[in-house]
Amino acid sequence: MGTPHFPKEVIARKRDGAELDRSELEAFARGASDGSWEDYQLSAMLMALFLRGMTPRETAYLTEAMMGSGIVADLSSIRLPKVDKHSTGGVGDKVSLHLAPMAAACGIVVPMISGRGLGHTGGTLDKLESIPGFRVGLPLAEFSAQLARIGLAMIGQTAEFAPADRKLYALRDVTGTIESIPLICASILSKKVASGADFLVFDVKFGRGAFMRDKARARELAVALTSSSAAMGKPARALITAMDEPLGRTVGNALELAESIDCLKGAGPSDVMEVTFALGEQMLLLAGIEKDAAAARGRLERSLSTGSALAKFREMVGAQGGDPRVADEPGRLPKAGLVRPVPSARAGFVRDVDALGVALAALRLGAGRVKAEDTVDPSVGVSHLAKSGEPVKAGGALCMIHANSEGTLREAAEILGRAIVVGDAPPAAAPLVGELIG
Amino acid sequence: MGTPHFPKEVIARKRDGAELDRSELEAFARGASDGSWEDYQLSAMLMALFLRGMTPRETAYLTEAMMGSGIVADLSSIRLPKVDKHSTGGVGDKVSLHLAPMAAACGIVVPMISGRGLGHTGGTLDKLESIPGFRVGLPLAEFSAQLARIGLAMIGQTAEFAPADRKLYALRDVTGTIESIPLICASILSKKVASGADFLVFDVKFGRGAFMRDKARARELAVALTSSSAAMGKPARALITAMDEPLGRTVGNALELAESIDCLKGAGPSDVMEVTFALGEQMLLLAGIEKDAAAARGRLERSLSTGSALAKFREMVGAQGGDPRVADEPGRLPKAGLVRPVPSARAGFVRDVDALGVALAALRLGAGRVKAEDTVDPSVGVSHLAKSGEPVKAGGALCMIHANSEGTLREAAEILGRAIVVGDAPPAAAPLVGELIG
Repeated sequence: MGTPHFPKEVIARKRDGAELDRSELEAFARGASDGSWEDYQLSAMLMALFLRGMTPRETAYLTEAMMGSGIVADLSSIRLPKVDKHSTGGVGDKVSLHLAPMAAACGIVVPMISGRGLGHTGGTLDKLESIPGFRVGLPLAEFSAQLARIGLAMIGQTAEFAPADRKLYALRDVTGTIESIPLICASILSKKVASGADFLVFDVKFGRGAFMRDKARARELAVALTSSSAAMGKPARALITAMDEPLGRTVGNALELAESIDCLKGAGPSDVMEVTFALGEQMLLLAGIEKDAAAARGRLERSLSTGSALAKFREMVGAQGGDPRVADEPGRLPKAGLVRPVPSARAGFVRDVDALGVALAALRLGAGRVKAEDTVDPSVGVSHLAKSGEPVKAGGALCMIHANSEGTLREAAEILGRAIVVGDAPPAAAPLVGELIG
Repeated sequence: MGTPHFPKEVIARKRDGAELDRSELEAFARGASDGSWEDYQLSAMLMALFLRGMTPRETAYLTEAMMGSGIVADLSSIRLPKVDKHSTGGVGDKVSLHLAPMAAACGIVVPMISGRGLGHTGGTLDKLESIPGFRVGLPLAEFSAQLARIGLAMIGQTAEFAPADRKLYALRDVTGTIESIPLICASILSKKVASGADFLVFDVKFGRGAFMRDKARARELAVALTSSSAAMGKPARALITAMDEPLGRTVGNALELAESIDCLKGAGPSDVMEVTFALGEQMLLLAGIEKDAAAARGRLERSLSTGSALAKFREMVGAQGGDPRVADEPGRLPKAGLVRPVPSARAGFVRDVDALGVALAALRLGAGRVKAEDTVDPSVGVSHLAKSGEPVKAGGALCMIHANSEGTLREAAEILGRAIVVGDAPPAAAPLVGELIG
């Protein structure tokens, strides 16, 4: 809109440290979606934004411009509060899979746009697609209709939502410009707000298995996400959570989905449930469903004990073309040909489970992607992961490997043997759920 | 060479402020010439280099890698000292055209690789091409043979020389990454050293008609150029010269060539000759032809008075396919259809001639390029330019416009009327040739 902005002039202004105005950031986002900026101009600008940083105002302008590059779901006809939850990603983080149906069962509408796995972190879409027939690519009309009907839909970022973000993210990935808090913030929010949510809850992870290694950086991102959300009229909260060890006892798509179904049946691992309840409480509080955390937790627990959350999950799977029987018979999920334990060399206590090592093993097995074009094998991964502090016998299983070839199984076993450390005494317990921001 | 370097990893190291090593900068330069780095990765890296800066060692590594991306002239069989001269560009700067033959007439071999004009600065190649038939695209073998035979050749940067620089320069031009001293330095030197010169003399211009507005920045570039040259085994010197007013009395390709021929005949404007002798002295001193500046100047003056420089020019023109008669009959150069004076509105003294304004007028007439693809009209431009301090009568000519259309003539006259300021008294004289660096 307004005056034309030549790419090199906008780039040069940012390069020289100027604060860009709305129309300049709109020109940049539009350039990314309609091709009026060349890729090499977009990437030069991304590096300038990375190194010069962005003010909160610039971040908000860019987010809005990226969102405005595509369609924005209009869920205003749905009267119930709409809340989305987003995790910055971790190893074994399957929380969305069961938290979304739990929240929906508690009277919230959950319009969730998720991503695919890349590198060491898994993706909610890949896990959902381990359900035979499940479709993550709903057109917007179907997405909205399903939300109005059952209060829950989990889809992928289609070309319709924030196309500028798709383009810019792909470029950032190959030009060393991923790790910028304002750019991460704009990327996440442009999709989340486009999904039609009124409120947002973020799980910002830090640690060796997270995108952010450092707690201070995670906190910085949490502050940026919640303040930018609020600036866009979407009240938001973020929890800082630890991601040094895998979440739960499974890593791999079908295996994690099965563990989420366990969670919906009230039989989830305690670490997974701790994060699930902490995030779920904030969703219910933000939406005004309950007035205090204890009441919110009680309502979430009832969604499990009454079976209403599992029913909501079953309903969503059916609505999106998947086989709803997996909710009751997880044996219908894809299974790997080879399942073998990794034995402990000694007796003692698990002192450490390196999330990055476990993720690397899963990657070797074929559970994830090294490059965006890679396909994932839904059946492979790691289950029955021992948790830090647990006693093990000599020769006892540290975990089970699910593989489809002897070669990858052997490689994964070797990596896992190093990633899971057994010692004489249990380690000191570290807190999992940390500060609440927003 | 050696270990492979993934583009995004090299980019990220520079982004984070690391000093890159030789192999990383070689990977970058090779990526630019062989396409193994994508354009968007090259431009992200250029912005990181721009904003993070480069150490002298990085600059030298990059220069060598860019030079090594193409052929390097081997002039070792030529026993005479080989000296090249380079100007950072200014309005009316035709010095190379006559200085190169003067230096060659003094016993130096001048292997000159020149550029084309872009924006407000003219290009030596465009001026040479105003000579009917003149070829600037000699193959390397012909370039070397001509140097051995007559000691002088003036050619363009072909695809053979420093292809990495061609690629990177084109990207810098459209991504706001031109104005980086180390990148400018690597770009200039990678070509100059590839030409086979043993010594280099730089004319680094500053002022409103120069690439560098600011004297301190020009000095910074001069230091970078001379120290990087020295680091590559090519002793170099740089002169800082002012470029607020056009050099000489002509701007435009054939017009400037004709003025250079005047210089070769000993009838050049005093400002042009002052810069010419200052640079020529350094060429002769570096080459060891003379031991002091006065002797060097004497020898250069004799090349004019004896006609040996003009003969050398005539010889070069003939060798490169041009009509050698232009040396004696400049009337053979292309002529514009319309030649009109710009009259002074009042009597007084010329107080100011804005180089940028004169350049803009020449650009409107068709003498230069706005974009690299534009073609230039060799015949058009401005001649008989009044110089600051000169008296003018009311209605007297401030300059002559050479145009090929009434429309462009009118526009140019309007611009020139503003660019040339007449007042009551002459301005204070400003020095033209400044500090010597190196």
